[in-house]
Amino acid sequence: MRASYYHGNRTFRTGPAPMPTPRDGEALLRVRRVGICGTDLHIFQGHLDHRMPLNGTIGHETLADVVEAPAASGFRPGERVVVEPLKVCGACRACRMGAAYLCYRLRVLGVEEAGGMQDYWAVPAARLLRVPAALGDDEAAVIEPLAVATHDVRRAEVKAGDAVLVLGGGPIGALIAMVARHRGARVVVSEVNPFRVDILRKLGLEVVGPGQDLEAFVQTWTGGDGADVVFEVTGNAAAVRAMTDLVRVWGTISMVAIHGEPLAVDLYRFFARELTMHGSRLYSRADWEEAIALAASGAVTLAPLVSRRIPLESLQQGMEETLRGGPVMKVLVDLLTS
Amino acid sequence: MRASYYHGNRTFRTGPAPMPTPRDGEALLRVRRVGICGTDLHIFQGHLDHRMPLNGTIGHETLADVVEAPAASGFRPGERVVVEPLKVCGACRACRMGAAYLCYRLRVLGVEEAGGMQDYWAVPAARLLRVPAALGDDEAAVIEPLAVATHDVRRAEVKAGDAVLVLGGGPIGALIAMVARHRGARVVVSEVNPFRVDILRKLGLEVVGPGQDLEAFVQTWTGGDGADVVFEVTGNAAAVRAMTDLVRVWGTISMVAIHGEPLAVDLYRFFARELTMHGSRLYSRADWEEAIALAASGAVTLAPLVSRRIPLESLQQGMEETLRGGPVMKVLVDLLTS
Repeated sequence: MRASYYHGNRTFRTGPAPMPTPRDGEALLRVRRVGICGTDLHIFQGHLDHRMPLNGTIGHETLADVVEAPAASGFRPGERVVVEPLKVCGACRACRMGAAYLCYRLRVLGVEEAGGMQDYWAVPAARLLRVPAALGDDEAAVIEPLAVATHDVRRAEVKAGDAVLVLGGGPIGALIAMVARHRGARVVVSEVNPFRVDILRKLGLEVVGPGQDLEAFVQTWTGGDGADVVFEVTGNAAAVRAMTDLVRVWGTISMVAIHGEPLAVDLYRFFARELTMHGSRLYSRADWEEAIALAASGAVTLAPLVSRRIPLESLQQGMEETLRGGPVMKVLVDLLTS
Repeated sequence: MRASYYHGNRTFRTGPAPMPTPRDGEALLRVRRVGICGTDLHIFQGHLDHRMPLNGTIGHETLADVVEAPAASGFRPGERVVVEPLKVCGACRACRMGAAYLCYRLRVLGVEEAGGMQDYWAVPAARLLRVPAALGDDEAAVIEPLAVATHDVRRAEVKAGDAVLVLGGGPIGALIAMVARHRGARVVVSEVNPFRVDILRKLGLEVVGPGQDLEAFVQTWTGGDGADVVFEVTGNAAAVRAMTDLVRVWGTISMVAIHGEPLAVDLYRFFARELTMHGSRLYSRADWEEAIALAASGAVTLAPLVSRRIPLESLQQGMEETLRGGPVMKVLVDLLTS
């Protein structure tokens, strides 16, 4: 039984760990795959040290087998499951409004509480969802980011025929683009990393690549109107400066990226065109169910997003490589190898 | 026949002018009152020199008498009217979407085209609305900003019981507060100018004044939740930095103020609480009709907002005084005196 621990200072160490003991209502899982996510990179860089405990275990994009589960949960040993990694208070304004995933006292498994970067993991059985047999392990490990994408597209109210621009073609941007395309939108992704541009094009997505003038492209593409919906998924200040010029009157900006610092925003453009911007975070149960259905039906293609599989012992190098950029998309930790 | 002209360099000059000749579909008006607005102060300071022609005439908050009007318009000489000061192209994306007031080729009477700061004024008869006899001249001259406020409150979907925070208690902020209160919202206005605080309190509004800790107040007021809707009407950077901390999960920020420069916005808070911000500008015909109805019924009290009346010859001093702040709320130019 191994677990990987966060030691601060851009350091993860993998070592032996005690076997977790499930508490009331919890299932014990054998972890198969865990994805490395942008949030994990923020943790790695220390941006979330106010939330992430030292010696904590990350990992919130997890595929696992059930080892044991409470009888009342309906889950049986051997079933493949994904984990909605949230603990909520049930009492705050967000929980009472039906936005429990925004709970004022939210605890994320893989941030505030132990995540999946360990061989065995005890989690509330109520947070498990079954994975259809049609999905391979790599694909199933990408269901969590796909649930982010279904949430983002639903919240942005993307409609058939909409001109949708996705700023940033990493895993989340690519998934948003595919979900929006499935809804009948006309989708363009802006991405500068040539490795990612290749993957996006192989997924059949239209890409505005490095060196292209994005604003001129959008002007031509939309006949001077601007895009109906822009998703900001880059996390960089230049995209935030540009985004307001790319949206039509009454258009929508979906703020998916995590921006650690306040950034300059063209508020005059919000006024002049009556733009709307909303934040979009995490997911409800319905977003997970939609994600599983889209993946299982093949409406969204997940396998090409996985650029590499690494053993748990290589988490540190995996984080460094992912942060460095270059030829990397979704990196999965494979707990079944070492 | 006098008109006031913008000469750039913070200068308006009033002098003799040729009598306007109405074109097809236009009415000739005798102007009674014109309000000085925040947009006019932006023009005064040169912020809108890219839109405002030299030797142009400002004034878009106008009350007038009809001198003559096309028979087909239904307007008769002597009727008191207010003017929806917009010319739209009818063909762009905004016009086609039913957002003609956001026309991509919008021309505002009082900015791109001649406004009401003149004794006689020719305007499209289709842009006139009758003023009920119940309203005095001062009140009627404030219908235009009231239409801004009805628009802002409608667009923010303020509901009965909502905790509504208005940042900035100038004329627009005060009107938004009164319209929101009429909808049954619980309203608080944040304002630092003691003269304005006095007027707001006389209007029965709850005010967080200078020296008070706004964030602590909102925490207590909303039981830690945050406000349902925040209107940003100050136009200053500190309010923009603070606004995101004052809103509840899934809450709304309405961007009413004109911010000439991009400003730092806490985008992490948009993400974390799934906040929504939208711009809010001008008005539709329905917003004008609601404004006239609210004013005529007494649901919104307008007279206390008028802090001063000046003759056209004093426009220059009126602009300087309004810009300086201090004991000033809505200043009206009275064209019937000199």
